[in-house]
Amino acid sequence: MQPGIAVGVDLGGTNLRAALVDVPSGQLLAEDKRPHVDRSPDAVAASLAAAVRAVDPEHRRGGLGVGIAAMLRGWTGVVIKAPNLGWREVAFRQALETRLPGEPIELYNDLNAIALGEARYGGARGTRDVLCVYLGTGIGAGLVVDGRLYAGATHLAGEIGHAKVVLEGGRLCGCGEHGCLEAYASGTHIAQRAREELQTRPSLAIELAGGADKVHAGHLDEAARRGDAYAEALWDEVSRHVGLALGAAVTLLNPSRLVVGGGVLAGAPRLGELVRARLRRAANPPSLVGFELVETTLGDHAGVLGAAAAILDRNAPIATEVR
Amino acid sequence: MQPGIAVGVDLGGTNLRAALVDVPSGQLLAEDKRPHVDRSPDAVAASLAAAVRAVDPEHRRGGLGVGIAAMLRGWTGVVIKAPNLGWREVAFRQALETRLPGEPIELYNDLNAIALGEARYGGARGTRDVLCVYLGTGIGAGLVVDGRLYAGATHLAGEIGHAKVVLEGGRLCGCGEHGCLEAYASGTHIAQRAREELQTRPSLAIELAGGADKVHAGHLDEAARRGDAYAEALWDEVSRHVGLALGAAVTLLNPSRLVVGGGVLAGAPRLGELVRARLRRAANPPSLVGFELVETTLGDHAGVLGAAAAILDRNAPIATEVR
Repeated sequence: MQPGIAVGVDLGGTNLRAALVDVPSGQLLAEDKRPHVDRSPDAVAASLAAAVRAVDPEHRRGGLGVGIAAMLRGWTGVVIKAPNLGWREVAFRQALETRLPGEPIELYNDLNAIALGEARYGGARGTRDVLCVYLGTGIGAGLVVDGRLYAGATHLAGEIGHAKVVLEGGRLCGCGEHGCLEAYASGTHIAQRAREELQTRPSLAIELAGGADKVHAGHLDEAARRGDAYAEALWDEVSRHVGLALGAAVTLLNPSRLVVGGGVLAGAPRLGELVRARLRRAANPPSLVGFELVETTLGDHAGVLGAAAAILDRNAPIATEVR
Repeated sequence: MQPGIAVGVDLGGTNLRAALVDVPSGQLLAEDKRPHVDRSPDAVAASLAAAVRAVDPEHRRGGLGVGIAAMLRGWTGVVIKAPNLGWREVAFRQALETRLPGEPIELYNDLNAIALGEARYGGARGTRDVLCVYLGTGIGAGLVVDGRLYAGATHLAGEIGHAKVVLEGGRLCGCGEHGCLEAYASGTHIAQRAREELQTRPSLAIELAGGADKVHAGHLDEAARRGDAYAEALWDEVSRHVGLALGAAVTLLNPSRLVVGGGVLAGAPRLGELVRARLRRAANPPSLVGFELVETTLGDHAGVLGAAAAILDRNAPIATEVR
């Protein structure tokens, strides 16, 4: 075991990605990526253990952190629900401990790990109080407080996508509730809604997509930029919900950086502009002094870097080298 | 100097309250309360120093924490604005350091200090992740994260009252902005709005108050309980804004306790019921598992206790004794 070295894993629905990380510098010493051949918890645990051994055959690591797109039951290491993997009630840390005995292992929500990665090494490097929000197929966030990952009392901090923005008569969300932010502003829900509504309404987005059934956020953004009434009205509604939610989060948390990632804003620059403008209007103006909204910079590496940093932080945070 | 002992001060617009606190137990070893004869920064600093000497003549304290209803400029110890004291741009920590040289002194936002007090010793005792919200003449909050006060990147964490809830055409807030939560739900704004609107509308609240110009939240609550249409509609609007804001905060932060204080909910039980019901609807349901909404229990002592605990935490958090 070597001080400052850990393995971080990003466990997605299709692949798992593992890396041996020098946590003080954020250097990736070795990487491994493997697709899931079998998504059963046992098979994934075996594949994950193999990836860990592959990136760290000499066992230099001081621990293993795993970021997973899942709802976790506090710090028990139990996955309540991982929709992308089709898991429910899986004691996954235990499954890993059986295969990799005698080392610290912890599970993190994927966005919590990504937030720590971006705060330490990416878009918010050099700052200690960071909110990281992804607007993609779903909406999630992670919080870094005083330089450390903040997972909340029961590991659910950052679930901003499932706070309601409409209390009565809200749209149905993938989580089963109505009126969640995600039901209005995730890429999936934007596309689904537009495809439904454009069966009976005209919009330039239909032509751009080559059919109402193919419309996604990118087409709507192009249509909104060209003055299409449907797309403009939809972007007005979506940006109002996202702007108010992010403005409230920035006001409550007073982070020095908001790191924004995920496909929706990247693929819809007009929506991005509207969201930024409304976030600034919605926030307490003094909270914007010294504040910056930045984009993610680490791409697919944020999760492995953050998970590796998080597991070593269990004792005391490790200072990041300035490079 | 004695380990675990500090002085906490709660500096309000009318009085200052100081206490010598045994931080591990939360015991108040001595107390002092004095009204401001002169609100100038110099006079208040002199009075504060005298109160500190009065509660701790033997200098047993390891530091002095001061909670103040003010916007602070990061950790500089400068008060940007303390409306209740009529201060702007006052280097108040420096003024205190001149009078009490050679000891750690820190200024905290009053609600940040109260939140730490309630988390350590009061309504949320025994838990480590706490959101404390006061709905009174204004609206503010404090965050305790992993057992410690979280003041944010620039000391503005918890300013939930100044996040917008309405982006266009919102009501004017005392801060100069439009559409803030406080402009809809503080005791001051509720009374002001009702008094205006009831010049031209009927409501039982007018009779209960003995005139439209005397209506406050308590009268509106009684009127709403008796089925008055104006009061019911107003409570519907106010509870929707507060419920959505608190539901989003609980979802984002995943605290184990939300401590609620301040005069509005205490004096308006029907509004309190509506807010609680809507908070539960607005939050991510899993975030409510193990979660409790509790009332403040420390009253006027929360601020001095929290400020004393906060100053000693500057090094490392002190474990609270279980009593």
